[in-house]
Amino acid sequence: MNRDMQQNWPSLLIDPLDDKPREECGVFGVYGLEDAAPLTVLGLHGLQHRGQEACGIAVYDGAHFHSERHMGLVSDNFAGPDVAKRLPGKAAIGHVRYSTQGETALRNVQPLYADLKSGGFAVAHNGNLTNARALRETLVTDGAIFQSTSDTEVVLQLVARSRRTHLVHRFIDALKKIEGAYALVALTNKKLIGARDPYGIRPLILGRLNGAPVLASETCALDMIGAKFERNIEPGEVVVITEGGIESHRPFAKVRPRPCLFEFVYFARPDSIVDGKSVYEVRKRMGQRLAIEHPADVDVIVPVPDSGVPAALGFAQGANIPFELGIIRNHYVGRTFIQPSQSVRDMGVRLKHAANRAVLKDKRVLLVDDSIVRGTTSLKIVRMVREAGAKEVHFRSASPPIRFPDFYGIDMPDAERLLAARHAHEEMVKMLEVDSLGFLSVDGLYWAMGEERRNDDLPAYADHYFTGDYPTRLCDYEQHNSDKAKQLSLLSDVA
Amino acid sequence: MNRDMQQNWPSLLIDPLDDKPREECGVFGVYGLEDAAPLTVLGLHGLQHRGQEACGIAVYDGAHFHSERHMGLVSDNFAGPDVAKRLPGKAAIGHVRYSTQGETALRNVQPLYADLKSGGFAVAHNGNLTNARALRETLVTDGAIFQSTSDTEVVLQLVARSRRTHLVHRFIDALKKIEGAYALVALTNKKLIGARDPYGIRPLILGRLNGAPVLASETCALDMIGAKFERNIEPGEVVVITEGGIESHRPFAKVRPRPCLFEFVYFARPDSIVDGKSVYEVRKRMGQRLAIEHPADVDVIVPVPDSGVPAALGFAQGANIPFELGIIRNHYVGRTFIQPSQSVRDMGVRLKHAANRAVLKDKRVLLVDDSIVRGTTSLKIVRMVREAGAKEVHFRSASPPIRFPDFYGIDMPDAERLLAARHAHEEMVKMLEVDSLGFLSVDGLYWAMGEERRNDDLPAYADHYFTGDYPTRLCDYEQHNSDKAKQLSLLSDVA
Amino acid sequence: MNRDMQQNWPSLLIDPLDDKPREECGVFGVYGLEDAAPLTVLGLHGLQHRGQEACGIAVYDGAHFHSERHMGLVSDNFAGPDVAKRLPGKAAIGHVRYSTQGETALRNVQPLYADLKSGGFAVAHNGNLTNARALRETLVTDGAIFQSTSDTEVVLQLVARSRRTHLVHRFIDALKKIEGAYALVALTNKKLIGARDPYGIRPLILGRLNGAPVLASETCALDMIGAKFERNIEPGEVVVITEGGIESHRPFAKVRPRPCLFEFVYFARPDSIVDGKSVYEVRKRMGQRLAIEHPADVDVIVPVPDSGVPAALGFAQGANIPFELGIIRNHYVGRTFIQPSQSVRDMGVRLKHAANRAVLKDKRVLLVDDSIVRGTTSLKIVRMVREAGAKEVHFRSASPPIRFPDFYGIDMPDAERLLAARHAHEEMVKMLEVDSLGFLSVDGLYWAMGEERRNDDLPAYADHYFTGDYPTRLCDYEQHNSDKAKQLSLLSDVA
Amino acid sequence: MNRDMQQNWPSLLIDPLDDKPREECGVFGVYGLEDAAPLTVLGLHGLQHRGQEACGIAVYDGAHFHSERHMGLVSDNFAGPDVAKRLPGKAAIGHVRYSTQGETALRNVQPLYADLKSGGFAVAHNGNLTNARALRETLVTDGAIFQSTSDTEVVLQLVARSRRTHLVHRFIDALKKIEGAYALVALTNKKLIGARDPYGIRPLILGRLNGAPVLASETCALDMIGAKFERNIEPGEVVVITEGGIESHRPFAKVRPRPCLFEFVYFARPDSIVDGKSVYEVRKRMGQRLAIEHPADVDVIVPVPDSGVPAALGFAQGANIPFELGIIRNHYVGRTFIQPSQSVRDMGVRLKHAANRAVLKDKRVLLVDDSIVRGTTSLKIVRMVREAGAKEVHFRSASPPIRFPDFYGIDMPDAERLLAARHAHEEMVKMLEVDSLGFLSVDGLYWAMGEERRNDDLPAYADHYFTGDYPTRLCDYEQHNSDKAKQLSLLSDVA
Repeated sequence: MNRDMQQNWPSLLIDPLDDKPREECGVFGVYGLEDAAPLTVLGLHGLQHRGQEACGIAVYDGAHFHSERHMGLVSDNFAGPDVAKRLPGKAAIGHVRYSTQGETALRNVQPLYADLKSGGFAVAHNGNLTNARALRETLVTDGAIFQSTSDTEVVLQLVARSRRTHLVHRFIDALKKIEGAYALVALTNKKLIGARDPYGIRPLILGRLNGAPVLASETCALDMIGAKFERNIEPGEVVVITEGGIESHRPFAKVRPRPCLFEFVYFARPDSIVDGKSVYEVRKRMGQRLAIEHPADVDVIVPVPDSGVPAALGFAQGANIPFELGIIRNHYVGRTFIQPSQSVRDMGVRLKHAANRAVLKDKRVLLVDDSIVRGTTSLKIVRMVREAGAKEVHFRSASPPIRFPDFYGIDMPDAERLLAARHAHEEMVKMLEVDSLGFLSVDGLYWAMGEERRNDDLPAYADHYFTGDYPTRLCDYEQHNSDKAKQLSLLSDVA
Repeated sequence: MNRDMQQNWPSLLIDPLDDKPREECGVFGVYGLEDAAPLTVLGLHGLQHRGQEACGIAVYDGAHFHSERHMGLVSDNFAGPDVAKRLPGKAAIGHVRYSTQGETALRNVQPLYADLKSGGFAVAHNGNLTNARALRETLVTDGAIFQSTSDTEVVLQLVARSRRTHLVHRFIDALKKIEGAYALVALTNKKLIGARDPYGIRPLILGRLNGAPVLASETCALDMIGAKFERNIEPGEVVVITEGGIESHRPFAKVRPRPCLFEFVYFARPDSIVDGKSVYEVRKRMGQRLAIEHPADVDVIVPVPDSGVPAALGFAQGANIPFELGIIRNHYVGRTFIQPSQSVRDMGVRLKHAANRAVLKDKRVLLVDDSIVRGTTSLKIVRMVREAGAKEVHFRSASPPIRFPDFYGIDMPDAERLLAARHAHEEMVKMLEVDSLGFLSVDGLYWAMGEERRNDDLPAYADHYFTGDYPTRLCDYEQHNSDKAKQLSLLSDVA
Repeated sequence: MNRDMQQNWPSLLIDPLDDKPREECGVFGVYGLEDAAPLTVLGLHGLQHRGQEACGIAVYDGAHFHSERHMGLVSDNFAGPDVAKRLPGKAAIGHVRYSTQGETALRNVQPLYADLKSGGFAVAHNGNLTNARALRETLVTDGAIFQSTSDTEVVLQLVARSRRTHLVHRFIDALKKIEGAYALVALTNKKLIGARDPYGIRPLILGRLNGAPVLASETCALDMIGAKFERNIEPGEVVVITEGGIESHRPFAKVRPRPCLFEFVYFARPDSIVDGKSVYEVRKRMGQRLAIEHPADVDVIVPVPDSGVPAALGFAQGANIPFELGIIRNHYVGRTFIQPSQSVRDMGVRLKHAANRAVLKDKRVLLVDDSIVRGTTSLKIVRMVREAGAKEVHFRSASPPIRFPDFYGIDMPDAERLLAARHAHEEMVKMLEVDSLGFLSVDGLYWAMGEERRNDDLPAYADHYFTGDYPTRLCDYEQHNSDKAKQLSLLSDVA
Repeated sequence: MNRDMQQNWPSLLIDPLDDKPREECGVFGVYGLEDAAPLTVLGLHGLQHRGQEACGIAVYDGAHFHSERHMGLVSDNFAGPDVAKRLPGKAAIGHVRYSTQGETALRNVQPLYADLKSGGFAVAHNGNLTNARALRETLVTDGAIFQSTSDTEVVLQLVARSRRTHLVHRFIDALKKIEGAYALVALTNKKLIGARDPYGIRPLILGRLNGAPVLASETCALDMIGAKFERNIEPGEVVVITEGGIESHRPFAKVRPRPCLFEFVYFARPDSIVDGKSVYEVRKRMGQRLAIEHPADVDVIVPVPDSGVPAALGFAQGANIPFELGIIRNHYVGRTFIQPSQSVRDMGVRLKHAANRAVLKDKRVLLVDDSIVRGTTSLKIVRMVREAGAKEVHFRSASPPIRFPDFYGIDMPDAERLLAARHAHEEMVKMLEVDSLGFLSVDGLYWAMGEERRNDDLPAYADHYFTGDYPTRLCDYEQHNSDKAKQLSLLSDVA
């Protein structure tokens, strides 16, 4: 089982400069609309920030399923007027992905598809299952052959093997076996299905375009096609869309929802409304609160672009200090840009960020970023700002210290490479070479979300990366990483 | 179930000019040799005549399986010194293919691979199963998910689901369920396995290179790498090659073998020894016998190149008439060469064949080809020869009239498009516009094979395309083509 | 002569959504540094905003010239550690380009190269010649064969045909024949040469890295490699860099320089220092002045990203009104993203820009952009902002109305498609569907540049797109577009 | 001048196994026919044996020239029904090439094109100029810029610089300056032009299709499109084809023609009629004469396929010994097939040739090849035949010993690597490990051509590779290889 089949796919190198957690995926689906595939192209383009590694679309044209899956951007793979011909039909689902589980290979790109007894079945998944490995082993022992290393295929295999007759029952059967985080969209020859895990860790919304239903990870995908937001798919809800309308199922025991805070901190696009809140406004409030929690006597507030901009704006407005673009981002960096020579390696950070000397020279500068993960890029930016002539460099993170790994679809480094998991505050100040450093408090973050503070008994959000308080069992992790698990609990004690 | 998932793969167009039956595949395997993959590249290159559409190699390096599968020629995909690095290890299997079952798509290219309970398992197949469809339906109903439309995957799924413990037993379990023709090579993390169906319809041989075992479809693949021929894998035999040596299993009830005659007529390379006989010598004997059965008063014997050459040589030597290259073959025709314009369509045959006027002008010409399938190319060649100035054009087929379809891996047209299935001799003479026409008799073909004549009670070879006498049940065909089956029996009566 | 050779190159489609003038090119050169090519890769990456269509590098390794030219981004074509091997040597020049003259074809991509009597000669050009067509006709009549349709090749052919002995003299000979705008870098087996046209219309600077000279279009390219800015190449200056040092030539009659204002308005990167001025600061001043010239009673200042951001910030600070990111830019748009279907065409603008509803709803909004060219995108953005719920939408252009075409390397639409060339102010207000509209005055722009106002007798900058006052003769235009020229003078009268 | 610009084109590796001289090129042209480009595709396909490295077509559609040039085979690059759309028009020229002069790069692929004063001009060339280097230096000194390293561009530059008014006069002007071998086809907006050098070293013929003129290197290209052969273009003739008909010019002083014998020995296709003689018949006569000059007491005559087949057949018929296919050629070898591993390198020859053991075992074998160049492949084949069990191996070359290099477009190794230039007969017998060795005599070759013997005063053919008697001056060679020239004269003494 521990033997991996390694296909020789062209490798997409991960940008070594990008020290951000990565969102795993975005999903999209439409039902009952001409040009379902072109609309899905636009919808996925609107979700591109959630995954730039690969993209795929599956459609049903009334007689056949068609599918295309590609490495790379939506706009590079689904441009042009022939998409409607290549992918005909009035129902479609789509997926953008950054790989979390499963090696980077075309066969892992979603939507996945299978010919089931009941007919074709395509599925796309945002999230990560915490018992996928255990389920997979059971299935393989029982004779299942997996076509990918993706944990999404576990869902497919479970649906295929369910003893129930109707597809929806088979699908719910499968959902009851899986644990973890998921926003799923699935397509059959009759139905479009959407499902969100009981805690609602990953987002999924329902919109309408000319009356026809649309599913998407974020509202910005609806805006892209001119669709109206209708409502969130609720945590634990399964919606089944047919020609007859929308049917809602709630097959799980009710739990208190805990949507993921990192959607607000970093992943979601600022113009999205996630679980009823403007992401942009939340981020500005994070900055405003930060200005109260960790004020600074500086000349300019400079965001680390692009993700630090709203919080920096909130800080600047709150503190009444000028907001200036002291760091310019170069948007022409391909995913595969490796520094072309050993000797020029140290100028790496400049590939993406450049110091705007006119704004920084002889100034006391406060840098605002959305979060600090490993700290490697933060340090490079601090040095770059100093080289540009800043007199003082202060740093603020608009989210609390990240101390624990995520198992729900966010690709973060191991705990041992998370800066805040390993170092006390004073160490971090030294390591980042800053004049001062401040993190937003956990309660501050809940305040930015509109809560008074965190309710430790029944927290309203998934915040385990800050607190170590995971919403679900971590079956695979516990079984296979017992050593690491010990380490985790150690860290947990420290925290 | 009747919904097909259609991936948009680049289409490889089938040469519309080639009126030949197509061999399905060639297989190759080595065990216990450094450079297993490079050796497999050479071996597959030696088997390239058995399938030019796609090729693949799977290796095991002691820790991982690696695999590459490509559309196109071995020499275009596995050239270069990095093959050994891309595909490391001392055990390898390989496959060249012309598609028979399963659409032309990379996911159908072999070797197929699965992670089974027992570990990785790769398999490559030459032949065709006659009950694949029925088995597939049962498996899907039971929750199996197929990753390809290839009938070879049925074997894989059966192995995955066997209740036996040991891999070899599971594999034999699977073989006992399948019917039809197969020469299989399979690779696990410990074993190289070869298997040949009970009738031995498709060939498979064992050779040695520096003591290490080699499996291949034909001896010419052994010659390519300098390996020595050891013996045929016998019909119904399963050989299991491990570090400990070679173990032979015979899990099937014994039947009289019936290897496929078309290997001798057309498929095998003339320098191969198939089931103990030189293909070149058999073909020359076919020509010699033809000269006796259907003599002709002509000036020159001209082969239809390349496959008609040995029979023409045999005819010429037997009849003591000069052998001349009256038709020149252009070997630079890509697989995808379509005539570039409607208005020049009729000059199609010349893309591959050109008349050598100096040899044909004012001559009585006898053309010798290995067989006549649809007759379309034969007619074009006859016309081309006449246009080049031949006074008379006679035609001889070195094999009997083809009247029945094949279900064991030869891609022949439907019965209604087989010239000899639909037309009486005199009609064929007119349709081909020849001055005379002769086919080798079935007994003549057995004579060329070294038999006295065909033993109708227990024929020594599979010869159903000539006789309608199929060695096995035709489960899928009977179930799904009951109409066609009736038509078949009709034709059978005529014959 | 009027017959064009059309090579079938893959077409790179121009983004139909982008209603911005396009910069033609950026140039870069280094001399006497190990890893000259990797440094040039980084330098060109820093100039990527000046041209995303194609890029090229030429090097000299002491014995041979090597060159690579590609369609697409620097980071997509010159990634990876093998660049230093592919392009060895200690002297290099490079080019990024957006096509102005010459169809989009690889043979037009620069640097261009020729084997001259004196040895190899490579040249890269930013700008546009106004007498290229006339010179080309003369040269062809005299037997010259052009390998491209680029006007840069005229320079090459003139150098080749000069009767002078020394290369530098031959080069200056050529410069004396050409008119228009140019920043040139050239490489021989001994020298790196830089040249700027007499008016200095296009920028060119000199920097140092570890003492070695570097030429670049903008300072941000120096920052990228950690080089120090030394000085501008002066208008009309030719610098010849050899192992012996830097030699400066001034072969032209002295004229009052007129660098192009659009570098400040739009082209140059905000972190660049152009002709001694911070582009970012100039743009903020444009916004500050605009707040004075065209104040507005609004709730939020919203930039049209990315180019409108500094001016919007300047306006907001000047007017003391909140600056908010009311429009979010999607940076994942490939150059070739065409709307995938006719029926979804009208949602085009959203591919690149999305409304941030939370900021806009029920607000009086002032949009600030750097300039208005055709107005098509402006209109779409205004509508999008209204659809997002804005109560009022006001628009400000941080530069004066654009009324005249450019002939110096900026790819603007013809006069008839320039909004301000054809419509009075009130018409524009209606056409753009805004509540108010304001353009910065020409004097206001000069103020932002640090001048009191425009000196109409001897203007300090090229500002013809606003004023119709061209710094040079327009030879080709006058000869070949006499009709259009009349139209131009008409418009000039109106202005 | 000695600095080469090296573009990084994908390298097409030359098959290291192929020990044959290589033909430089084939040319083709049609005028006044719909579907000119598709017809040219077919014509070039018929000439593919003359050059497999690259191919190109240029057309004129009444308003514009269009052109495509590709690396690789005609059938891989010009397949499909869109060729007529990509290359519209009723006049076309085409070229297949194996590189002789000029590195392997797309910019050297023909037809070459230039915009001249008189309009567009495309030209394709088979042959090699012996004073190209000298002319090129003069032209560059005079300011010409070359776009390729091909000697064909010298013709283009000379036409561009001619002081004559009419294009035909300019073209003839250019021809008068060049020396060496050429068959040229050229296309203007009014004319199709064909030209053959004064000695007629390279072939060029005129045919007709539906009355419209067709130019081609060989008659097999006419056969491909169903055109009728009309006549040879005569040595020293320039034909100018317009709507008004065909005009013939003879601008050169008359010399005794000397067409190249190697066209008959190896290059031309056997079904072609070259200078009035059937290539197939000539080759058979070479074999017949060889059987007289160098008889052998053997059991079988085995050709080295494919080029040795007609001579072997002639030998077998002459000597009345059985002709057998003892060596099978594998036609699936890509141009780039490198042995995939060092350790399997020695099995190289088998990639292309396989021994047919059944024919060779225990036999006395006579191998017949068309020629012996370096002898490296001959040795490998001899060894392979012995390993297959041959008792004796005799070798016959159907042409005389090759002792001198060619300068007219045949790519042969340097003299020092020509087996017969360096070794006495007995040495060669030992080196090739044969039981006997025989070469056809020069007089024997003339006899096969229908002459009584070679007329040493006025030889009828170019035969310098055998005799050292070159038809023209060797200007470039004499100037630049004076050392080698001395060596050449030495060898000449020996011969």
